[in-house]
Amino acid sequence: MSVDTSARVHNFSAGPCILPKEVFEKSAQAVMDLDGSGLSILEISHRSKPFIAIMEKARALVKELLGAPDHYQVVFLGGGASMGFHLVPQNFMRTGGKGAYAHTGEWSKRAIAEAKLAGDAVVVASSEDKNFNYIPKGFTVPKEVDYFHFTSNNTIFGTQYKAFPTSPVPMVCDMSSDIFSRPVNVSDFAMIYAGAQKNMGPAGATMYLFDPGALGKTGRKLSPMMDLANHAAKESMYNTPPVFPVYVIMLTLEWLKGIGGIAEIQKRNAAKAELLYATIDRLPLFEGTTAREDRSEMNATFVLKDKNLEPAFDELWKEAGISGIRGHRSVGGYRASLYNALPLESVKALAEVMEEFAKRNG
Amino acid sequence: MSVDTSARVHNFSAGPCILPKEVFEKSAQAVMDLDGSGLSILEISHRSKPFIAIMEKARALVKELLGAPDHYQVVFLGGGASMGFHLVPQNFMRTGGKGAYAHTGEWSKRAIAEAKLAGDAVVVASSEDKNFNYIPKGFTVPKEVDYFHFTSNNTIFGTQYKAFPTSPVPMVCDMSSDIFSRPVNVSDFAMIYAGAQKNMGPAGATMYLFDPGALGKTGRKLSPMMDLANHAAKESMYNTPPVFPVYVIMLTLEWLKGIGGIAEIQKRNAAKAELLYATIDRLPLFEGTTAREDRSEMNATFVLKDKNLEPAFDELWKEAGISGIRGHRSVGGYRASLYNALPLESVKALAEVMEEFAKRNG
Repeated sequence: MSVDTSARVHNFSAGPCILPKEVFEKSAQAVMDLDGSGLSILEISHRSKPFIAIMEKARALVKELLGAPDHYQVVFLGGGASMGFHLVPQNFMRTGGKGAYAHTGEWSKRAIAEAKLAGDAVVVASSEDKNFNYIPKGFTVPKEVDYFHFTSNNTIFGTQYKAFPTSPVPMVCDMSSDIFSRPVNVSDFAMIYAGAQKNMGPAGATMYLFDPGALGKTGRKLSPMMDLANHAAKESMYNTPPVFPVYVIMLTLEWLKGIGGIAEIQKRNAAKAELLYATIDRLPLFEGTTAREDRSEMNATFVLKDKNLEPAFDELWKEAGISGIRGHRSVGGYRASLYNALPLESVKALAEVMEEFAKRNG
Repeated sequence: MSVDTSARVHNFSAGPCILPKEVFEKSAQAVMDLDGSGLSILEISHRSKPFIAIMEKARALVKELLGAPDHYQVVFLGGGASMGFHLVPQNFMRTGGKGAYAHTGEWSKRAIAEAKLAGDAVVVASSEDKNFNYIPKGFTVPKEVDYFHFTSNNTIFGTQYKAFPTSPVPMVCDMSSDIFSRPVNVSDFAMIYAGAQKNMGPAGATMYLFDPGALGKTGRKLSPMMDLANHAAKESMYNTPPVFPVYVIMLTLEWLKGIGGIAEIQKRNAAKAELLYATIDRLPLFEGTTAREDRSEMNATFVLKDKNLEPAFDELWKEAGISGIRGHRSVGGYRASLYNALPLESVKALAEVMEEFAKRNG
């Protein structure tokens, strides 16, 4: 049934996004028959031995690949990172307390709104003054808040923290769009969470990696569905988990481990980003939209200085089998997402199209 | 890549459970290449035209198959029906108000606990006195509550409402385990919700079908993630939805429509249940565990009168390629789940095993 499309479409989608080809193949196989069981991954009980093993492996691979301390816990829940925005104050903010937030774009805005609903939010840093085209630096997190939250990479605006902030209070990070792309010192964080649909798997699951010792301090009476400690105690099986998304996450993390883990993928990601940004900077027709030192290795945003050229450029990249480089509807221009599974060849194809376009319009 | 397993495993799993074979095939194909797009269903943006069309079709099919009034809304969210237990009071209970509940097993217990966390719950009927082996009848729902909630089918105990209750207040029903198995007069309900992983699709999405006019009356200030009206206004795309689960739901509902919809599946389900219950009743070795008039057509629960015979019986059904008929860990005995996609042939296989076992031990 397989159609080899690897030479046909270069998928730069901002998420859900490209996953490794072998993950697509193994996933499709498991939909027909999981490991010779005679059953589809879609029809097995989440309490069956095969799925318990899949869940355990996925949880263990998160910790192994990130080098997380032994006592940290991993759960996979539905609802996307937007559910995470809601869960953060529920699990970390005392009743009547507040959370500190760095405001770097649409996702931090939504996270801050959730904190305000649950109590209060203090915005300790913001790049809103320049339409979020840089990462705020040198700010201080106050001691009298319950936690500090930031977004490591901003998919829409194409900015990324190169050095993580420090905080005197528990630090919580939404790493949805750059998790597993570079090393992280997990013990610096009370919690890291991430929607799966970039570097980890398909849409439909969100990963929460946390220090259980940081939970249970809020005085809030939580629904079991909102209580990360409950989900951890039930080994991410309090209720039926998103079985297939968790399976694909396991496959994707196996792939990452197989190619050499974070150290190897970091090199590959750097090579891809270097090539694309060098092309943007070399060609006078194009212009990057973010501060150079904050450029994301996951989402490269750029514009054509002359907007009138957009239709001609669009025609050219579409002809080359390139997909998904239109900018977010709230920003415009272009955005090439360079997630873990995107091959260097795709970036080369885009760079060639840009060169060719510059030649024609130079 | 396909392995034809239709003759090999009879999957009676209580959920996640068997889906139609053509749904497995089309899903696997889409994981490799969605409709010739050159992209996997796992890597397309949820804002792409193909996925918007899939989401729209899935939402429309829910309404079409159930004959829902035009103004009703459908959204698909992550989190399972357990998230639904939480969302019901958030969306239907006034601050300081209360919900009425019929208590018929584990799932209603969890739903009641959520109502108590949000305010108060009045249990208007319960079958706990007989370990939930029947459906309470003839009870009255008081007028001074905000809503009335019940569970249409109880997977663990194998009971099912044959006639739905009536209520002077908005009625909300968890139909996770029998939705799309029989006709429902949707306009009798303010909301019907259901985890996908029985008759609708794989684990990872929950469907909410509701009258938007019944919302927005609580005075609660809701998180956008908890607010069903928000999800409906955003056409179930407030944030990244569970893309693949929604796709498989669409395929499953297309299949149901193709075979003749609810009218046809109701006949098939009746034939399957009739055969199995007749076998249980005819063979003195076996015994059904629920009140006859409340027997579920989705989950048939039964025991061997002599528990010592269990190992021999287990061996026999396993030999016959039967899977998933062990009772829920909280009950024991056996449970054969007869969801929409289970073919009559599988029930015949189980009935034959039971006959054979009776012969050997008669």
